[in-house]
Parts: sequence; structure tokens; C-alpha cells
Amino acid sequence: MIIQTELSTLSRGDLVDHYLMIKKFELRSTKQNKQYLNIELGDKSETLNANVFDNVEEIYNSFRNGEVVKVKGAIDDYQGSRQIRVNSFGAIDTSDNISVHDFLPKSLKDPDEMKEEFLKRIESLSDYHLKNLMKRIFDGERFENFLTAPAGKSWHHGHIHGLIEHTHEIIKICDLMCDIHPSINRDLLICGAMMHDFGKIEELKYDGNFEYTDKGKLIGHIVISAMLINEEAKKIPGFPEELKDCLVHIILSHQGKLEYGSPVVPKTLESIALYQADELSAKVNAYKNALSSQLKPDGKWTNFLNLASTDLFNHGITPEIEEQINKTLFD
Amino acid sequence: MIIQTELSTLSRGDLVDHYLMIKKFELRSTKQNKQYLNIELGDKSETLNANVFDNVEEIYNSFRNGEVVKVKGAIDDYQGSRQIRVNSFGAIDTSDNISVHDFLPKSLKDPDEMKEEFLKRIESLSDYHLKNLMKRIFDGERFENFLTAPAGKSWHHGHIHGLIEHTHEIIKICDLMCDIHPSINRDLLICGAMMHDFGKIEELKYDGNFEYTDKGKLIGHIVISAMLINEEAKKIPGFPEELKDCLVHIILSHQGKLEYGSPVVPKTLESIALYQADELSAKVNAYKNALSSQLKPDGKWTNFLNLASTDLFNHGITPEIEEQINKTLFD
Amino acid sequence: MIIQTELSTLSRGDLVDHYLMIKKFELRSTKQNKQYLNIELGDKSETLNANVFDNVEEIYNSFRNGEVVKVKGAIDDYQGSRQIRVNSFGAIDTSDNISVHDFLPKSLKDPDEMKEEFLKRIESLSDYHLKNLMKRIFDGERFENFLTAPAGKSWHHGHIHGLIEHTHEIIKICDLMCDIHPSINRDLLICGAMMHDFGKIEELKYDGNFEYTDKGKLIGHIVISAMLINEEAKKIPGFPEELKDCLVHIILSHQGKLEYGSPVVPKTLESIALYQADELSAKVNAYKNALSSQLKPDGKWTNFLNLASTDLFNHGITPEIEEQINKTLFD
Amino acid sequence: MIIQTELSTLSRGDLVDHYLMIKKFELRSTKQNKQYLNIELGDKSETLNANVFDNVEEIYNSFRNGEVVKVKGAIDDYQGSRQIRVNSFGAIDTSDNISVHDFLPKSLKDPDEMKEEFLKRIESLSDYHLKNLMKRIFDGERFENFLTAPAGKSWHHGHIHGLIEHTHEIIKICDLMCDIHPSINRDLLICGAMMHDFGKIEELKYDGNFEYTDKGKLIGHIVISAMLINEEAKKIPGFPEELKDCLVHIILSHQGKLEYGSPVVPKTLESIALYQADELSAKVNAYKNALSSQLKPDGKWTNFLNLASTDLFNHGITPEIEEQINKTLFD
Amino acid sequence: MIIQTELSTLSRGDLVDHYLMIKKFELRSTKQNKQYLNIELGDKSETLNANVFDNVEEIYNSFRNGEVVKVKGAIDDYQGSRQIRVNSFGAIDTSDNISVHDFLPKSLKDPDEMKEEFLKRIESLSDYHLKNLMKRIFDGERFENFLTAPAGKSWHHGHIHGLIEHTHEIIKICDLMCDIHPSINRDLLICGAMMHDFGKIEELKYDGNFEYTDKGKLIGHIVISAMLINEEAKKIPGFPEELKDCLVHIILSHQGKLEYGSPVVPKTLESIALYQADELSAKVNAYKNALSSQLKPDGKWTNFLNLASTDLFNHGITPEIEEQINKTLFD
Amino acid sequence: MIIQTELSTLSRGDLVDHYLMIKKFELRSTKQNKQYLNIELGDKSETLNANVFDNVEEIYNSFRNGEVVKVKGAIDDYQGSRQIRVNSFGAIDTSDNISVHDFLPKSLKDPDEMKEEFLKRIESLSDYHLKNLMKRIFDGERFENFLTAPAGKSWHHGHIHGLIEHTHEIIKICDLMCDIHPSINRDLLICGAMMHDFGKIEELKYDGNFEYTDKGKLIGHIVISAMLINEEAKKIPGFPEELKDCLVHIILSHQGKLEYGSPVVPKTLESIALYQADELSAKVNAYKNALSSQLKPDGKWTNFLNLASTDLFNHGITPEIEEQINKTLFD
Repeated sequence: MIIQTELSTLSRGDLVDHYLMIKKFELRSTKQNKQYLNIELGDKSETLNANVFDNVEEIYNSFRNGEVVKVKGAIDDYQGSRQIRVNSFGAIDTSDNISVHDFLPKSLKDPDEMKEEFLKRIESLSDYHLKNLMKRIFDGERFENFLTAPAGKSWHHGHIHGLIEHTHEIIKICDLMCDIHPSINRDLLICGAMMHDFGKIEELKYDGNFEYTDKGKLIGHIVISAMLINEEAKKIPGFPEELKDCLVHIILSHQGKLEYGSPVVPKTLESIALYQADELSAKVNAYKNALSSQLKPDGKWTNFLNLASTDLFNHGITPEIEEQINKTLFD
Repeated sequence: MIIQTELSTLSRGDLVDHYLMIKKFELRSTKQNKQYLNIELGDKSETLNANVFDNVEEIYNSFRNGEVVKVKGAIDDYQGSRQIRVNSFGAIDTSDNISVHDFLPKSLKDPDEMKEEFLKRIESLSDYHLKNLMKRIFDGERFENFLTAPAGKSWHHGHIHGLIEHTHEIIKICDLMCDIHPSINRDLLICGAMMHDFGKIEELKYDGNFEYTDKGKLIGHIVISAMLINEEAKKIPGFPEELKDCLVHIILSHQGKLEYGSPVVPKTLESIALYQADELSAKVNAYKNALSSQLKPDGKWTNFLNLASTDLFNHGITPEIEEQINKTLFD
Repeated sequence: MIIQTELSTLSRGDLVDHYLMIKKFELRSTKQNKQYLNIELGDKSETLNANVFDNVEEIYNSFRNGEVVKVKGAIDDYQGSRQIRVNSFGAIDTSDNISVHDFLPKSLKDPDEMKEEFLKRIESLSDYHLKNLMKRIFDGERFENFLTAPAGKSWHHGHIHGLIEHTHEIIKICDLMCDIHPSINRDLLICGAMMHDFGKIEELKYDGNFEYTDKGKLIGHIVISAMLINEEAKKIPGFPEELKDCLVHIILSHQGKLEYGSPVVPKTLESIALYQADELSAKVNAYKNALSSQLKPDGKWTNFLNLASTDLFNHGITPEIEEQINKTLFD
Repeated sequence: MIIQTELSTLSRGDLVDHYLMIKKFELRSTKQNKQYLNIELGDKSETLNANVFDNVEEIYNSFRNGEVVKVKGAIDDYQGSRQIRVNSFGAIDTSDNISVHDFLPKSLKDPDEMKEEFLKRIESLSDYHLKNLMKRIFDGERFENFLTAPAGKSWHHGHIHGLIEHTHEIIKICDLMCDIHPSINRDLLICGAMMHDFGKIEELKYDGNFEYTDKGKLIGHIVISAMLINEEAKKIPGFPEELKDCLVHIILSHQGKLEYGSPVVPKTLESIALYQADELSAKVNAYKNALSSQLKPDGKWTNFLNLASTDLFNHGITPEIEEQINKTLFD
Repeated sequence: MIIQTELSTLSRGDLVDHYLMIKKFELRSTKQNKQYLNIELGDKSETLNANVFDNVEEIYNSFRNGEVVKVKGAIDDYQGSRQIRVNSFGAIDTSDNISVHDFLPKSLKDPDEMKEEFLKRIESLSDYHLKNLMKRIFDGERFENFLTAPAGKSWHHGHIHGLIEHTHEIIKICDLMCDIHPSINRDLLICGAMMHDFGKIEELKYDGNFEYTDKGKLIGHIVISAMLINEEAKKIPGFPEELKDCLVHIILSHQGKLEYGSPVVPKTLESIALYQADELSAKVNAYKNALSSQLKPDGKWTNFLNLASTDLFNHGITPEIEEQINKTLFD
Repeated sequence: MIIQTELSTLSRGDLVDHYLMIKKFELRSTKQNKQYLNIELGDKSETLNANVFDNVEEIYNSFRNGEVVKVKGAIDDYQGSRQIRVNSFGAIDTSDNISVHDFLPKSLKDPDEMKEEFLKRIESLSDYHLKNLMKRIFDGERFENFLTAPAGKSWHHGHIHGLIEHTHEIIKICDLMCDIHPSINRDLLICGAMMHDFGKIEELKYDGNFEYTDKGKLIGHIVISAMLINEEAKKIPGFPEELKDCLVHIILSHQGKLEYGSPVVPKTLESIALYQADELSAKVNAYKNALSSQLKPDGKWTNFLNLASTDLFNHGITPEIEEQINKTLFD
């Protein structure tokens, strides 16, 4: 892992001598037909704009979007926003020992803790077949990918380790619902929670900028997860058919409605619980995310969010403590 | 409170000498023009059918739907279902000391515990103004009504004490979300949870069969709650305008979408959290309810549910304990 | 195969001594509390009503819906409609050599010809991997089921051999589209057509009345087909990933829209062609079916059809031949 | 009130020495990184564009959007459109005696006449309680605001005095409907019409550019109106509950459908009449407005209007008078 | 026109010797297989039920639904509702001089006055070509049909003369809108109003019970009207093309939205005005109609209305006159 | 017809001395207020961009969008795309003998063959009245327009002769469906296919860039076709009313759903067949079209297509021939 100061800590005039990921890479030209590159460069802390007017053709042919490069230059100011004035672009080599994941937004939660907690949760399953199935699936390279992948491109948990973070939150909500409602089959619901977005490890690319894979767009994470359960359950002797069908059903129905991409709607107690727990986690995280990243300059309202069909209000209300108030009022 | 054996424990031939509530009261006639009464009679445990062919006109003019009456007769069998053969109908008088709530379905949770827990939750609020407001609203007759009312006619929590039971479940879910996401304003969210369905105490009648009131149908519980907050907050000196607007907003938006009857959509972190927590509680309880009350004779599928646009599957899966399986497999 | 006159040829007064399938089996009772059985009995030609007032309990406990029984009685007339007056009900035994499929509606097309034509169509595929995959899937018991199954419960091709009949029609339409548009990959499209409804062999029961299976309702024929392709393609060494993904995509997207139950929408030329060819075949057959089975007494309009959101018009227009007309006009 | 020539009467080369409102105020920069201000400046007659390249930072920090400033410069021509070449920007002081309303679009109707007519309409109400309620609400500062406010941002009646103008039109339509249908309760309907958009005085800001207030976005004019009626009716002794509920219902339901933001749909004769009268007024005014302000250069079609989901046709048909035609044809 | 007492004035025991229209005519049978006729018989004032158990077959074959017959019998009482006990059914002959329209619900407005007013309105048109066109269309048998036809089957104006009554109401509303908005072309709008539902004279049958014709269901009144305007305008020399297109456009778009059956949406000022005026008239009349004919026994709420997606409230509010109140309060 | 090399064959530096059609003609100006023309110029093979900075005003006033002009200049390169550097613009005169259709995209099918085949198809109709009607409609100038017109602006068959090409494809599909289903009335269906988009000859302009006409936007091709059938059928003595109504119905309902602009939904076997055949042809052609013209640089995915609500995948799968594979595997 490389050591370098974070972009977000640099001010106007500071020198840049950083490994940075190319987040956007576009050839443009001015009205007078002069070509230039409109680039975005970032580490995990921030992404800044840069316009390059020299050696345009050479640079454009040497690098590609999503790649990590060695950038030299300085922080400049443009219309009140910081940007990078680039002096040189250099390729990295293997000796630089670069991991692209260091240049992508990351979960604030500790991945090792999340991994350990997840493994414990598998151990605590009561059902022999389900525990066996989970151990097979969350294993080896597949498990590593699960621990690394984001849960989406941007709307919520769109960061490295986002998938396990989101899965964890849903497991907690599901556990609470099982505590309140003993008629829910806890093993089925928790396995459904574990698997519901698992297919995202194949639906998304996260070795550069987050993008959908061809397979992801043609098949989708829901059916990828379902096909995997089908495959692995067939390898376990005596895996009950109804149990498999019910688990596949939870996965297939977890987007809740046909028009959201589920081929069947929830028809069991566990599947409706998972759908609503997923909604609760997804929406709260997405709104929280938008409230910090999409705020307009006045700090009160975000931009209009297409996925929410509204803008959001960032109230400034913090609780008044009763004692303090009482003092003010009566002293 | 009256003491009598529950209807659900009586079998064919058993005598009936019970106070029962009239759940349905319809004048019909046979093809040959003979009039009879098609009645449903119930206590909190069960409701049974009864056809009365004698003294039809007199009985029809003496009683009304939703009333508790003294019924004498016996349990009969009709097409495989138990019904009541009525010998006589009698009016009750005040000395019978009857409470209609004893004849309506009731929450399985202890109402006194729920009340105590609710009061503690108000005490634990940090914000001076919100705590003050909650104390004013959840007080006296209004509070008693809140403790008694159902949360709906039938879809979920359609029983006496259902409103506080449903409110409790949502408070728990909201508390969990606040634990996970410290940027949620806990006081605002919890007060929103407490108040979100409060208007149902005026939207519904529950002194007989559950029905909507005229006010409930003309105005709806959402705006009833909002108007109450507006009224009570005006009586508290210095209640911050923004705080009031944000609390009213949570109430107004808690059905999540305009087409579900919210005049505004959720625009704050607290309002989206409440909407989704409400959905989670409502849907899980409604499906659980349907899975026990709407099952078809084979016990596997329910009737088609209009509100869910599907029938539900009652799988018979119970966890296999690992040790037991292992014994079976390897011993 | 049994030999007996078809129900549809019998008139009032004719004796009935037939093997018939129970299509409906309901315990009812009259206003005066007398129990009776409301039954529908049918062979492949017709289904008639029967009300049984004797030995009700015994008969009800001895038989079940979908079963074939030996019925003795006569054709009666009830309100202008023929019905069966039942004298006795008898169980069948294996020596009767009964096949339930003889009592279900059947395709008018010859199943052996369709089978042969289908096998030829597989042989004519050019792509090595796809041909191999099709040969594996359309084999043994699975193939027999495919040749027997209906394509639905009632809307279109709801009869024995309906699945292959519907598949054939779509293959023809797809072939025509490939002739017109050479840029369509014919092998992919034809294999998509062959497989698109294949999962119906597990989605539906057709060993008595047509019903959905539990698996069919929990998972659906689309994902059943997709999981099967995934399984079988994995067994073929070197099966190209992109080819598999594109074939699975055609299956998944063939209902055309998310709200119709496809988890992805058509994104390739072949998948849009299959969706529209399926629509063309399904709708024309469904309307043709309704125009013959749902006509109201006046013969001009059908009942209102929920799936079409309209009633249909049965015009009486037959072409006038030019020569005939000319004779009339000018001779 | 200030006296100055209207912008719309000035031509290229004319001097500008005007108080103007800043309608848009945006910091931009050219490709070569030179900052400039893109501004729109207007009086009530017209709004013109201006690009300012000098003293950019100073000006940007001294003024804000919606403010009235003293502008010196001249009318310039840019790509066939008139714009303002700004020489200097000056702040106004109180001695300039400026009212921002003089710089906003205004109704063409006389506000004093509309006020007088409105007061007469209140006087003519028959119902004691409703008349009392209207007098309380349309009083003092609240009434002044009602007389000044626009009825919307831009779609229809988006000008000063627009709210009362729109209200007047609806009252006229409602009166006609009452004449035709005596079973409509005229007092209820007219009070509903008066109050239906009243909450817009708090939903919108109109002391500069028209914008939504925070309260407007969190609560909306519908519930603001409803809460006000609730408050004021409580102050009138003996105000009948049903009368209040019916009036609140008209307000809540006047957008006609849940998806348009009404928390209940119209359930009384008066509420359906108000909804449809509002639609008639709103749509005709909006289309009339678009046909004058959104026409494309050819003068025949407007731009595509998102709110109408179509473009509009500006036919050039004027009636031919019969006599004239006859002359032309026969003389 | 025949003279007979109205059904609605007859009480239990009164003799019936009336010409009545058959409103429903259904062959049924009892559980015990006895056939009977379930009939509804009515004049314009009321429709009553009748069950006929004698001569069933003969009567069923001699009469048909929608026919007027001579009925002898008496008023009976069945389950609290009046019905007719039929003694004999007789065919009418031409000497009875019966008009079926005397047995259908009728407008309360005077048809001759409406006719005269309508002709005056045509005379007052200014545009030569439009006036000419209207005179051609509203002429002879077509005009007579227009004066007689209902405007629909039941939702609003479903009575004889309903079409002209509805058209009149819309003309009044349109005239008011033209008074308020001089930029509306009054001639175009009024001609659009006159013609908008004209096609209903071919869409509906009203020589017995109101039913849709085959042509009505295949083509619809909108396109029938449009084709007629096209035909007649072609016969007027020099009829301007744009004028014809704009008038046809108003007709085609007057249902406002594609999903309501208009092939184009309103794109002119006149067409949006007509659509909204039609909505106002249609909805107010439909709700008024439902509030009188669909009230439940308690007189407060109607049945649930599918077309309105709600039930309606019949408040009992009548205005209190100020003076009276004042007396009560202060005297 | 003019002879000149096609634009698509010219490379950077090649001289341009061509007749070209102006496809876009927009006056713009740079930040520094210099005016220029942003133009697109094309022949049937390609359209290229051109920016003109000299004689802007004169050129802008001399030419108009959609016009063919004489352009001199050279092929230039701008940001990797070819464009035209214009030296001079000249008007054409009649001696240049220019047909605008030579500058519009054209069907790849031979128009004369399509015409001949179409006439044969009319001849082969059996029904006297329908054949007569088709001969009247497809005649003279109307037929010429039909042979020339495009079937749309761009989504599918948006090229000269596109209308007959699309009509041909649908006739073939309909013929296949008639072969499979003898109960379809072939004459009715084929005439419906011939006429279904006929109104596009008046709905679209194609004497320059493809645009909608005023009549097209006000009335639409569906009703234009219907009115024409109505007119022409009236001229044929004895044309059966039901036959006319059924043919008009096919035309009116051929967009399948009200929300797609059909004023009635398909209610006959022929109309459902035509709707689905039209969908099949339209969607396959539109997707094929997008897959060749909308591909993104990587060649795998197209841009997002609004009309399909998705992007499309351009797989690279070509069949492997069995023999070749076998060699590789076993040799």
C-alpha cells in the first residue's frame, strides 16, 4: 500500500506528485479547434478536474479511463474550485506496487471486523443444509470478491467493501424482526440476506471505475445469485428441494415488485421481510449519501435527485437538552 | 369483565349462553320469499354464523350491527363448519357490566407493559420542546384512546391495542437505524414514529365493529395528526418553527408516495427512515396475519390477497439442527 | 387408450357409462341445510355439470379433484343446458388402463409430426455448441414432458401438446424474420425460441387438471429455464461464456418488460425478435380461443376478457369472390 | 413607485439608467479561465441578458439574486437579441423608495377592483359560520399577502396578484355551476374556492424572484390552508364540526387525485366541482400563457411543454363574418 | 303518448294494468330445478323486480329484453322492497300507439326549449363556414336523433335528451371562458362543444334499453364525429383546410388523454378548454347522479363507485342565515 | 439524377464540389460574440458537420433548413471526426435538375420491385369490395406518395420508400399467420396491413428533412387513414357497412393500446394479428437500426435509447460449423 498525502488535504499552490486514478478521460476541443483533454483524477479522498493542453494525442493514446497513473503538477484554482495543473503523466510499473482499490472510495467500517462477524453469523446458523451451503458459497476467491465489491455504482454503498457493509446492516434488521416475530424462519431469512446481492460480484467491475459488466447487464445479479445457489445446492447430497426453492424465491423476489426487476413477487414471510429490510437500508443510506454529497451551496437543499424524484432537506436541528433549556428559562 | 368460556372452545352440541357481539346483521329471504336473518356472532376468540328464521322482524328492529347481546342456543354443524343455532336473543343492561372491547380481537402483548414502556420512551427524549409536545399529546383521554385503538380495519394490527403495538415495533426499528446511523436525529425520528398513525384514534371507530368515521374518510389520519401537532406546538412558547415543520413533514410524508396518500414525499433523513420502517412493520405483520387467517384447506397457500396482489406460501420448513443431522449421517 | 363415445355427442336421455375426469368437486348445501356435491365431469371433448344428492359424504371422501372415475347415469336437461344425472361413481383400477391425458383437451396437431419436425430443426442448427446443448436438453424424460405439456392454464395453448405447438409456431415466425433480416443470428434465435417456455414442464401440473406447481409459483418458468441452460452448458467443455450469457438473456427477457415478469428487458436483436414473435403467437391464439369458447348467446360478442381488457367481436364477414360478384352485377 | 421607461420599449443603442431586478446571477468562466458574470436583469416588462467581464469578484460579492440594483449602460445586440452592456452596478438605498413588486410580472387586472369584488363576495355568503370564518382569515396582513401573491412559479398565474386573479376566475365558474345545479351548496363551494390555494402565501416567496419556501416544500399549500381553517374555526364558538370537516375536505381534495398531491380524493359534490373548476382555469391559463411566451420562431408551434407532454399549435384562424363572405361570393 | 299512473306512485296491493318496458329478462332455475323468469319491469319513473313461475317457456320465447309489454298484476312486497306480482303478459300492437321513449329515463329539462336555444346558438355563430357546416349537420333525422339521444349508458346524462342537455351545459361553460379569455376563438370552441359527443347518436342504441352498437364499439363516437365533419366539410366549397383540421382536432382530443381514448392530446387553446369544460360537466353530473341513486340506507355514504374509485359523502349541511343566527345568539 | 461521389467515400483533404442538403442550420456565436453558422450537410450516404465563420448573415438569409445547395470546400478533420470546410455556398437552379429525394436516406430494397409486388398482392385479393377499394386508394398521386414516403422520422424505416418496405414486411408476416390460422379472414387482414400506416403520406413531410406536418400533429395518421377509407368506401355502391366498420376498426386499433394513440383497442382476430405483426416488424427494424447507427466507440453497446428504455448489446457471436469444430476436437 502506497503512502502519499490525500488529495483532499492539499490547497492551492501545493505540489502534486501522486499516484492518481483517471476517473474521466475525454478528448475535447475549443471553438477554435484546439484539442485538449478533460480529465478527472482522484484518490479515495477526492476527485479533481484537470484540463491538459499539451501532448494531447500522445497522452490520449497511452492511458485509459480507470487506470492509475503518476501525476506531477500543482493544485490550481478555477472559478473557486480547486483543480490540478498537470505537468507530466507517467505510467506505473509493477514495482510501484499499486492496488487500484486504494484509489476508490472505501467503506468507513473495518473490513476485517466485518469479515469475522460474517463468518460467525454463518457458524450460528442452525440448519445443517443451509450452513453447509453458505460455507461453500462464501469461500475462496468468491468470498474475497464479496468482501471487496461495492453494492452499487453510486446510489448507496457505492464504495469498496460496500457489499458486505450493506449485507451486514440488513442482517441486523432481519435479526431484530426475527426477535419480534418468532414465526419467521431465522435461518432462511438470514441466508436470504447473505445471498441477496451476492451476484453483484459478477454484475459490477471494481478494478477501476465502477461499471456494469456485460454479464451484469444481460443477466443481472438476481439471476446470477439464483443460478449459483442452484449449482451449489445440487452438490450437497439430500439438500431438500423445498428448502432450495424457498431460498431461491427469496433471492428472486427481493426487489419486491416485477417492475423493479424481480421475476416473482414475495410470497413468503421471509421474502417480504427481506425486501422491506433491503428497502430500509438502501433508502436510508442513499438519502444520507445524497445529503452529504449533493448539497447545493446554501447547505439546505440537495440537487434534485432523479432516483428519489425530489430534492432533500438538510435541516439544522440538533436536540436541546432539557436541563440546559430549563436553566435558560428559569434561572 | 365478564367470565364465559370462549366460543372457539365449544363443539357441536355444546350449549351457548353467552354475551356475543353482532358482527354482521343482514335481512335476507329465501327463493320462496320467506325472510330470515343472516347473522355473525362473535367474542374475541372467534366469529360464527347463525341463520334465524323466527321472530325475524322483531329481532331486526331491536338490535343493530356492532351491539353486544345475550344469546341462548347451541353449537350446530353446517356443511362441516360450526355455527350457532339461536334460541333466543336478549338485550343487555348496564348491570351486565359489558365492555365492547372484550368482544373484539386483541393484541397478544400486555397493554400495561406497552404503556409503561411508551412513557419511558417519552422520558428519554433529549429535546426539550419535543418532549414537552409529546407529553401534552399523549395525555388524558387522548392517550387512553391511543392505548386502545387498532392500527387498521384488517390488513395489519386490526385489533384492540394494535396501534400502540405497531407504534412500538416501529420505534424499535427506528432505534436500531439510529444506532447504525448517528447522523439521524433520534428525537425527531422517534417523535415521528410516535405520532405517525396517531390520527387513527379519530379515523376509526372501535366501540363496535371497526369502521371508518366520517371525519376519517373526509380528512384522513395523516392530516388529523398534522393539525394536532400544529395546535399543540402553538401552545408551547418558543417552539422552533423549523422543528415543527420537520415533525409535521415526517407525519405528512410517512406513507412515502403521493399515490399512497401522502401530500408530500419524504425529503429528510428522518422521514425516509420512518416511511421504510413503517413499511417493514406493516408488511411483515400483514403477511404473517394472512398466513394464519387466509390459508386454504391444503394449508400451503392462502387465498389471493388483493392488497398484496398475490397469494402467499406457507412453507413447512423448520431448521434441522446440525448435531442431529450429523448423528443421522455418521453414527 | 380407452374407447368410448365422446360426451359432446350425447343428447338428453342417452345413457352414460363412461370414464370421466373430475374437473370440479365442491361440497355445498341448500338453504334447508341439505348437503350435496356440485361436480363437473369431462372427457377431452366436453365438460358437464352434475349435482349429486345421495351418498354425499361417502363419495366426497373417496375421490378427489382431477381424478378419473367410472360414472354411470344419463344425460339430463337443466335450464336448457345438458348435465349428467349420476347413478353411481366407481373407482378405476390399473387394469382399466386409463391415461389421464385422454381426459384433457388436446392439440389438434399430430404430436408425432411435431416431434419429428422439432428434432429435424435441432439437426439443422449450425453452431456446434448450441446444437450439443439442445440435444442434451431435449432428451429422455425431459423431452417427453416437453412433448406433452400445455403452454398455459387457459389463455392460449392450454391443452396437452400445447407447449410444442406454441413453440413450433414461434420457430416459424422467427425463421421468417431471419429470412428478411440476415443480421439476426438464426441459431441463437431458434434456440431461444425452443427454450423460452421450456420451464413450463416444471411450472405446471398436467396429470389431472392444469395447475401451477409450488416451484412454478415460487420461481417461475423463466428462471427454471435459465438455471437449466446454466447447468447443462457447464457440462459442455469449451462452451463460450458470451454465447451462454446471450442465450440465457433471450430466455430471461422474453416476456419483454419487467412488469410482465422478465428480470431484464431485451437488449439484443434476437431477444427483441423472440419477445415480439411470442406476443404475436400468444395473442392471436388467445383471441382465436376466446372467440370460439367465450361467445355470448347472440354469437357476435364474447364475454368481457380480463386479460385483453375488452370483449371481442366475431364478425361474420367471408370474402366475396370477384367473379361471382361480377356475374351478379353485369350478367 | 418609481418612474422609468420600460425595458421593453428600449432599442439598440438606447442608454440604460434603470433600477432593475437581478433575475439570474451566475459566476462562469471561459475556456481560457477568464471569469465573468452571466446575469439576467429585468423590470416587470421584460428580462434581458448581460455578461459582465470587469470587477467580477467585487460585484459577485456585493449583490445577490433577486435584489434590485441601479444599472447604468446601454442596449446592445447579440445574435439578433437585445441585451444590456453594463457599465456600472450600484446598490439602492432606502431613499430610492423601491418596491420589489414593481420589478415582477403583474396581473393585467386591477388589484383594487379584485379586492373590492372579493370582499363583496364574502358579504354575500349566507352561512353565518362560514362568513365569520372567511372574515377572520381574509383580514389584515394575511389578506394583504393574499392580494399580492402569485398563484405559482410559472405554469399559470405566475405573477403578482395572480393568486386573487386565479381565485376570482374559479369563483365565477363555481357560481355558474351552482346556477345550473341547485343541489350544490353554494356557500361551501365558494368558501372552498376562496381558500383552496390560500396556503400559497406561505408556500411561495415573492419578495424577489418567485421561489418555494422551506415550509412550502416540507408541508405544501394544501395542508397549510387546512391547518389554518382548523385553527380559526376553533376560535368561533359553535362552529359545526361537520361543516369544518367538509370545508377542510374540499381544500385537501382539490388537486383531485392522490398522485397530484391531495391526501384524499373528492368525495362530495362541492369538492368535485372545485377540483374540475380549478383544472379548467389552470389549464386554460397555462396553455394561453405558453402560446404567448413559448412560441418558436415560425409562430405556429410552441416548444415542447413538459407539463402538458406536448407542444401547442397557435392557429391563425379568425372568424369570417357571414355578411362579408356573402358579399364576396355574390356581389 | 299513453296515460297511466306512474309505477313510483303505486303501493303494496295496488293493481297493475300497465304498459311496461322489460329492463332485464333472465331464465333461472331453483335448486330443485324449477325454471322461473327473473324480470325487471319499468316505466320512466321506476323499475321493479318480478319473478314469474308460470308459463315460463312460452313467455320467454314470446318477448325480448327492451320490449314494451302489457302487464297485469299487483304490487307485492318482498323483503321490504316493492315488486310486481305478474298475472299476465301481453304483446302490444300498433294501435296501442306506444313510444319506447316514454319508458326510458328522461331529462328534466324541456326538450323544445333546448332545441330552440340550440338553433339560436348556431345562428349566432360569426364564421361563415362553421355556421354553414353546423346547419348541415344539425339537420333532418340527424338533428332529431341528436335531440333524443342520451349522452351515455349510466354514468352521467344517461337519459333521453341527455346528449343535448350535456351539450348545453358545456356550451354555457365555454361561453363563460370566452368572456374571461378573449384570445379563445369562440366560434371554434362552440362548434367543438356542439359536435364533441355527436357521434353518440350512432354509438348508442336508445330504442329500448341503452346499449352500445357494434359500430360504437368498433369505431367509437369520437371518430364517428370526426368522419362526419370531414364528409360534410368537403361538400362546402372553399372550406379552409386549417379550419377543418382544427375542428377535427378539438373533437379527437376532447377526452384529454390518450389513455381515455383520444388519439391525440389537446394542442390548441380551444381543445384544452373543451376537454376541461367537458370534465367539469361530466364529473359534477355523475357525482350528483350517484349521490341521489347510489345512497346506502343510512343516507350518508353511497356505495363504492368504480368510476370514481371512492364512495361519496352526502353531507346534510344547509346554510344558516346570518340574521337568524344573530337573533338566536343575541336576542 | 445527379452523378457525384458519395460523401462517405471522401477522406481528409479531398475536395468537395457537391450538391448537398442542409440538415441543420443554426446561428450561434462564440463567447466573444462572434457569430457563426453551425450547419450539417449531407447526401444520402452521410451527414457531416460544418462551421462557417464568413458571410454569416448573408448565407443565413439566403438559405433554409432542408434545402439542397451547391457546396465547395474540402474534407477537414476535427477531433477525430471528418467535417467539411466550406469555401462557398451556391443556390441551385432548375437546370441543375435536382431531386431532394436523392439527398435523403433510402431503402436498400428496389422500389420498382416493391411496387410490382404490391400491385400483385392487390390483384390476389378475393373480396370484390375490398379489392375495388384498394385499387381506388392505391392509385395516381396517392400511390406515388405511398411508394416514396418514409414510415417514420427516425425510429424505424425512416428513409425514402420506408413506408412500402415496412408495409411489405408486415404483409409477409400476416400471410404466414393466415397460413397457420385459417380462421383469420385473409383479405381483411391484408387490406388492414396495406392501409395501416397509409396516413403517413399526409402526416409527414419528406421533401426535405423528415418533419411532421401540422395536419399530422393535429389529427394523426390513424384517423387520416380512417377518414380516407370512409370517403372512398362511400363511393363504392353496395359496400357492406360491417365490412367497412371492421376495416376502419383494424386501422384505428393497430397501435394496440389507447395510450399508444389508438382510440379503440383491437377487438377482432384480424386487428390483434395486425397490431402484433406491426410490433414485430417495427421493433426488430428499430433495434437493428440502432445497433448499426448508435454504437458507442467500443462497438459492444449502443447509447441509451429512450424509446427502448435501455441500451442494446451488439454481441459478436457467429455460428461455429459443426464439422470444423469436430476436426479441431478430434483430429
